[in-house]
Amino acid sequence: MNGGDAPFAYSGLERIFHERGRLAVCTCLVANPHGMRFTELQDACALTDGNLNRHLHALAEVGVVEMERVTGRGRPATTVRITADGRRRFLAYIDELESVVRDVHARSAETPPVHDGWAAQS
Amino acid sequence: MNGGDAPFAYSGLERIFHERGRLAVCTCLVANPHGMRFTELQDACALTDGNLNRHLHALAEVGVVEMERVTGRGRPATTVRITADGRRRFLAYIDELESVVRDVHARSAETPPVHDGWAAQS
Repeated sequence: MNGGDAPFAYSGLERIFHERGRLAVCTCLVANPHGMRFTELQDACALTDGNLNRHLHALAEVGVVEMERVTGRGRPATTVRITADGRRRFLAYIDELESVVRDVHARSAETPPVHDGWAAQS
Repeated sequence: MNGGDAPFAYSGLERIFHERGRLAVCTCLVANPHGMRFTELQDACALTDGNLNRHLHALAEVGVVEMERVTGRGRPATTVRITADGRRRFLAYIDELESVVRDVHARSAETPPVHDGWAAQS
């Protein structure tokens, strides 16, 4: 959480990671640092070919992942890996996410819910 | 986390909350269950008029927030509040976020980073 003038700006939530599909891909790649095949990644994250492709290119463009395409006998296979810099940045993003969760837990415990009423009154 | 065939699908991350601006707005409103003025919310979340407006209308459309516009002497003021249902759904989303964080921590601790190499080799 940002401690400045806008306490809820969450400017540390790097946009590149804060998309559900890319969050899934990065979590998966952190758990498999030696790399995963495109198809394994697709199954683990429940993404279509096109979506996974789009996310991987966005992540590769900012140096978070690298891809290796191996051709030879059979179908060509693409392997994807998170880079050392990508891992570091993703873990920093996760720390920020953790502070959002802590923040909400702390604040929601202090402030009990209010019964709905406005909509009925107006 | 989803325990099904696609362990990293994170289907519980409701899209309505998983946008940095809306995440900020909801965190703020959970902390202020009696409601906040539009301008207070704007300052706390560092959002422009147009952006905050857009997010609030998206949240109101699915019943997460309600807005009350008070006119009288001086400028009209809009007050925004999270609904009981919105609060419940947002806290469920936060629980899912927490499980993502736990998951990454557990998996990154098990799997040390791999030195970069592919890019240099290719």
